[in-house]
Order: sequence, then C-alpha cells, then structure tokens
Amino acid sequence: MVGLVALVAGVVALAALPAGAHVSITPSSAPKGGFPVLSFNVPNEETSANTVKLEVTFPTKNPIPSVSYQPMPGWDVAVETTKLAKPVQSDDGEVTEAVSKITWTATAGGLAPGQFDLFTISAGPLPTKPNTLTFKAVQTYSNGEVVSWIQQTVKGAPEPEHPAPTLTLTKAEDEHSH
Amino acid sequence: MVGLVALVAGVVALAALPAGAHVSITPSSAPKGGFPVLSFNVPNEETSANTVKLEVTFPTKNPIPSVSYQPMPGWDVAVETTKLAKPVQSDDGEVTEAVSKITWTATAGGLAPGQFDLFTISAGPLPTKPNTLTFKAVQTYSNGEVVSWIQQTVKGAPEPEHPAPTLTLTKAEDEHSH
Repeated sequence: MVGLVALVAGVVALAALPAGAHVSITPSSAPKGGFPVLSFNVPNEETSANTVKLEVTFPTKNPIPSVSYQPMPGWDVAVETTKLAKPVQSDDGEVTEAVSKITWTATAGGLAPGQFDLFTISAGPLPTKPNTLTFKAVQTYSNGEVVSWIQQTVKGAPEPEHPAPTLTLTKAEDEHSH
Repeated sequence: MVGLVALVAGVVALAALPAGAHVSITPSSAPKGGFPVLSFNVPNEETSANTVKLEVTFPTKNPIPSVSYQPMPGWDVAVETTKLAKPVQSDDGEVTEAVSKITWTATAGGLAPGQFDLFTISAGPLPTKPNTLTFKAVQTYSNGEVVSWIQQTVKGAPEPEHPAPTLTLTKAEDEHSH
C-alpha cells in the first residue's frame, strides 16, 4: 500500500515536472504580421564544457522578410541568406531573399557551466499563414559535443528530448505592433 | 474586372502589411502611473553605413519626472534636462526639471548593417492624462544620412514612412507597478 502511494506520488511528480532547460524562443508567441524582438534562450547543460557556437535555421517556406541581430559582446555573428522559391511582398517592394541561418560563434570563451544567455533578433513582418514557426537550433560545446534542437513537438504527444525552438503565431493585432 | 480585383486585393494586402523595420518603443504600451523599463528598438536600415547616433526627445508637456538609462557598452550617453513650465507633484516632492533629451553616441563603431539594438531606459511615473506619449527620435548614420522618426501616426490613416516612437498609456494598475 505504501508502495502504491509512493508509485502514484512519483507519477504525479513526474507529470508535474517541467522538462530540463531547453534552447527555446522567448517570448514563445507573437502576433501574425508583427515585428517582434525575439531571443533564443540558450542554457549550458554541461558540467565542464562551454557552449561555443549556436546555429539557428530560419523558416524559408514562410519566410520573414527582415531579420537583424543584436550585437553581443564576446560573440561573432554570421548571417546567411537564401533566394526564396516564392518572393514575398513587403512595403519596400518584392523580397526575393531572406535570412536562412544565423550563426553565433564565441570569441571570448562562450557560455560556462551554470550560465545561459539570450541571442536576440528583431524579425518581421511575421508570416500570416502557419500557426507556428520552427527555428531548428544546433548547440556546440567546447568538448566537441553537439546538441541538435531539431525535434518536432506534436500536440498531445510527450515532449521530445530536444525540441526545436517554436514560435506560436497569434491572431494579428489591429494596430501596428512595432 | 481583373483590374478591379487586383486593385482591391492590393489595397487589402497593403492594409494588412506592416511597415518595414522602424525605430519603435518596446513594449509599445504601459500603464498610466507606472514605472516601466522601455527600450528604443533601433534597426540599421543601410547596407553600407553604421548607425552612430540616436537622439530621443522626451515629452515635457506631460513630463516623466524620473528617467534613467541603462549603461550600454560602446555607447556614450548624454542627458539633457529642462525646467518645466508647470511643476509636477511626485512622491519625493515637487519636480521642477525633467529629462528633455537623451543622446546615445557610438564610441566603438555603432550598429553595423544587419544589426539592431535596444537603447533602454527606466522611466516613471508615467503621466495619467494623455493616452499616448510620443518620443521623437533622430537616427544618424556614419555616411552622414539622418533619419528623423518624428511623424505623427493618425488612427485610421496609413502609417507614415517615419513614425515617431509612440507609447500607448493603458489604464492605471491598482497596485504599485514599481
């Protein structure tokens, strides 16, 4: 009987437990058509290695026409663009290229154990069609370990071990959100 | 008929389209009487020049008694105050002077193409009277170009090309927000 109670308590505790620290987007949602500031929240989950590189892949099926990054002391930033299969209309005319990847590379040691940091972008206008945007992220440690945050989260299913950072697109705001 | 459909579609698309990256305030709203942290979100929209200066003018008709700025590596900050025509009451007594302008000047190259940055202040208590506060901003590039974000946004009208950053003041919170 004691064992059963313990078992039940254990299951409840497990269900209530949040997953470990993940590479994620904050805020986790933004209005369709908006132009938000978004940060990739990157934890260091190793006990004796530093995070020295973060590679984030941007959606190009429903692309974001304008993406810029916040300068970050101790990190070099490289931006890759790609020619869009289907151009997108914007205020400034037709957009034929979009950011496909941003790579942050540590120049001063990177993120140590116990640390996290925010890798911040300004991006917009967000597409109006899908309800989520996925930003696959690859985290490289100084000991050579590579963690790929690329798994799809399926509604109703248990969370995968390394979910890709996902932005939920909410109803467009009436007024300009930027 | 085809022309009409195209025209209508174009108007709809235009109305739904947010403008390109603007100098703006984030968050874009805060409660009356509150003491928020606010950032001026500054994109670099040039392809071969850096943003090297940002001048923000503060409202003095409905002034904010206390304004301070977050230190920012690579930027010098100068604060100008002005004697208020009409003193304002505050917790600490009568306020006769208020911040009228803050100027950020780059000391390490400024914002490069592809970058944006957040110029952050703490300000309050926000006035209780108007429903919006306008912070005219002037952005100077290393090639001498000056962009004045000073146009008034009129509800219902198309967004101007260079709108002034505008903070919407929402209903005062019951409890102290600072």
